[in-house]
Amino acid sequence: MRDFRLYCVGESGNCFKVALMLELCGYAWQPVFVDFFGGATRGGQYREEINELGEVPTLEFDGKRLTQSGVILTYLANLSGKYGGKTEDEKLEILRWMLFDNHKFTSYYATLRWMVGLQKTGDPAVIDFLTKRALSAFSIVDKHLRARAFLLGDEPTIADFSLAGYQYYEEETGIDRSAFANLNAWSQRIAALPGWKHPYELMPRGLDVATNK
Amino acid sequence: MRDFRLYCVGESGNCFKVALMLELCGYAWQPVFVDFFGGATRGGQYREEINELGEVPTLEFDGKRLTQSGVILTYLANLSGKYGGKTEDEKLEILRWMLFDNHKFTSYYATLRWMVGLQKTGDPAVIDFLTKRALSAFSIVDKHLRARAFLLGDEPTIADFSLAGYQYYEEETGIDRSAFANLNAWSQRIAALPGWKHPYELMPRGLDVATNK
Repeated sequence: MRDFRLYCVGESGNCFKVALMLELCGYAWQPVFVDFFGGATRGGQYREEINELGEVPTLEFDGKRLTQSGVILTYLANLSGKYGGKTEDEKLEILRWMLFDNHKFTSYYATLRWMVGLQKTGDPAVIDFLTKRALSAFSIVDKHLRARAFLLGDEPTIADFSLAGYQYYEEETGIDRSAFANLNAWSQRIAALPGWKHPYELMPRGLDVATNK
Repeated sequence: MRDFRLYCVGESGNCFKVALMLELCGYAWQPVFVDFFGGATRGGQYREEINELGEVPTLEFDGKRLTQSGVILTYLANLSGKYGGKTEDEKLEILRWMLFDNHKFTSYYATLRWMVGLQKTGDPAVIDFLTKRALSAFSIVDKHLRARAFLLGDEPTIADFSLAGYQYYEEETGIDRSAFANLNAWSQRIAALPGWKHPYELMPRGLDVATNK
């Protein structure tokens, strides 16, 4: 059995995507806390040796390291034979949603949540820019899920775990989620999968719960 | 031989990524002009029937359609056996860069170029936000290319074609490219590949050259 070590921080939905997949696949793994909010990924040893992109998560095993949540999800799907689609068409459809997630769905929303929900700073024009783009991405996914249980159809895949990364955090972002009924039902469907755990049950938090610092 | 039809517009570097790959693989293909600047992707038939994500490019062949440039590049690499890497490690490394491209490299820069270079509008705070993030992404790739001809090493792959999508447009963006010598050398190396053509040689433009409207 591989000894998986996940460099992560609880507040990162990108880390949660991978932590959830490891958990649902039943792999033995341990979190390695990265002091993201203290600047650990911005330079120094982490950036030089562990992840040149300056991001979490990084998955370490057998003396090698993988970075980018979409890469790690794909690797684990190949390894486990689970949640990765069967045909080439399904694999390309998964990739389509993971790319959209990185470009527009997680991307704008995670930055918005960082500014509004965690840092509690940010220029109003930038917040407006991010809000409009997050709403547009939410609308597209909500519409796609109108007639589907999961992004590809009846069964969950790593595309769902990727897009669901930031769906379970409670901070205020200014987005009115009540407008996205299909998205909410889908999030709850994922949270009902046997073995699902909340990000903070899987990974250590980097911010003090009382002060957010 | 498949009859590839690429829904595209010349100003879109995301379309260029695919057009270049089709060209370098020697496939027969034709561009199908999408009036992106006239709003064709924002609703109506294109969004309902061709691309629910409201984006270009879309590749059409054999009665099916693929969307997201990274998906199309992966499909064409599988089909042609070219530019897609050989081992699982290489394929995952390609995916790593394509995800980073969608999240941070093309993403912020293309939006910046859209605002500053094409629309010539945009809130200064948003432009500052995008500029800082584009510069950070450029620095990461420039550093990675310090000791490599292409992103994976000696040979070009679809990861290069993805990140190079917006490197050949001339509009002002406020980014000082002289600070990125490795990135510039790499762009020129790609432009020197046999069969390379400029985006405007491959695809019809959507904006009037004289007025940008």
